[in-house]
Amino acid sequence: MDALLLVAHGSRHPGSSDEIRALAAKIAQTPGHRFDWVDFAFLEIAEPSISEGLLGCVRKGAKHITVLPYFLAAGRHVSVDIPAELEKARREYPQVQITSTPYLGAAREIPGVLARLSQKTT
Amino acid sequence: MDALLLVAHGSRHPGSSDEIRALAAKIAQTPGHRFDWVDFAFLEIAEPSISEGLLGCVRKGAKHITVLPYFLAAGRHVSVDIPAELEKARREYPQVQITSTPYLGAAREIPGVLARLSQKTT
Repeated sequence: MDALLLVAHGSRHPGSSDEIRALAAKIAQTPGHRFDWVDFAFLEIAEPSISEGLLGCVRKGAKHITVLPYFLAAGRHVSVDIPAELEKARREYPQVQITSTPYLGAAREIPGVLARLSQKTT
Repeated sequence: MDALLLVAHGSRHPGSSDEIRALAAKIAQTPGHRFDWVDFAFLEIAEPSISEGLLGCVRKGAKHITVLPYFLAAGRHVSVDIPAELEKARREYPQVQITSTPYLGAAREIPGVLARLSQKTT
């Protein structure tokens, strides 16, 4: 069983968790991926936390959890905080393979997405 | 003269401003956009600030400034803080048209970018 865990920063804004939930559902519906399900978790403020999200995947029977950092900048959250959470989880669940993808801001498509977005004025 | 101002959150991480500078340069090189140049600014922490970035565009002769919020969530920064900065600038520079695009997280391409990124494990 192969799980994808989308990890976002977390916000006090009421609609923010719904946005991430909807995004996880959209990724799950995108054809061609290898995941049995897509969950989400938050680094701060909102729930579930990363450790709760990882535990949820383990309880559902995940043998491999891929964490996708939904962050734009390679700051402390991406380079220190999330890796520390994953390291802790690897010690807790040695039977589960826990890996991470690059953070969203590093995706090669981003400049093109921004160039197209720049043509849309609200 | 038509300027695009990429607005990011700002970070204490030393490489973060360079990341945004490089991104602005990549957008500028993307074919098909209408901008004479692409600048960048930060909401917090890093410099230039949004008001400094807007002033820079005005001084370079921009008649229309398009602000692109480089943010993932529709939180307070996107819904309150950036609009307040733009409103202030519209009063200061009434001769300049200042508009905003949707924030990056709202771009329709994001779920597909995440789905592709999820296949890349570091």
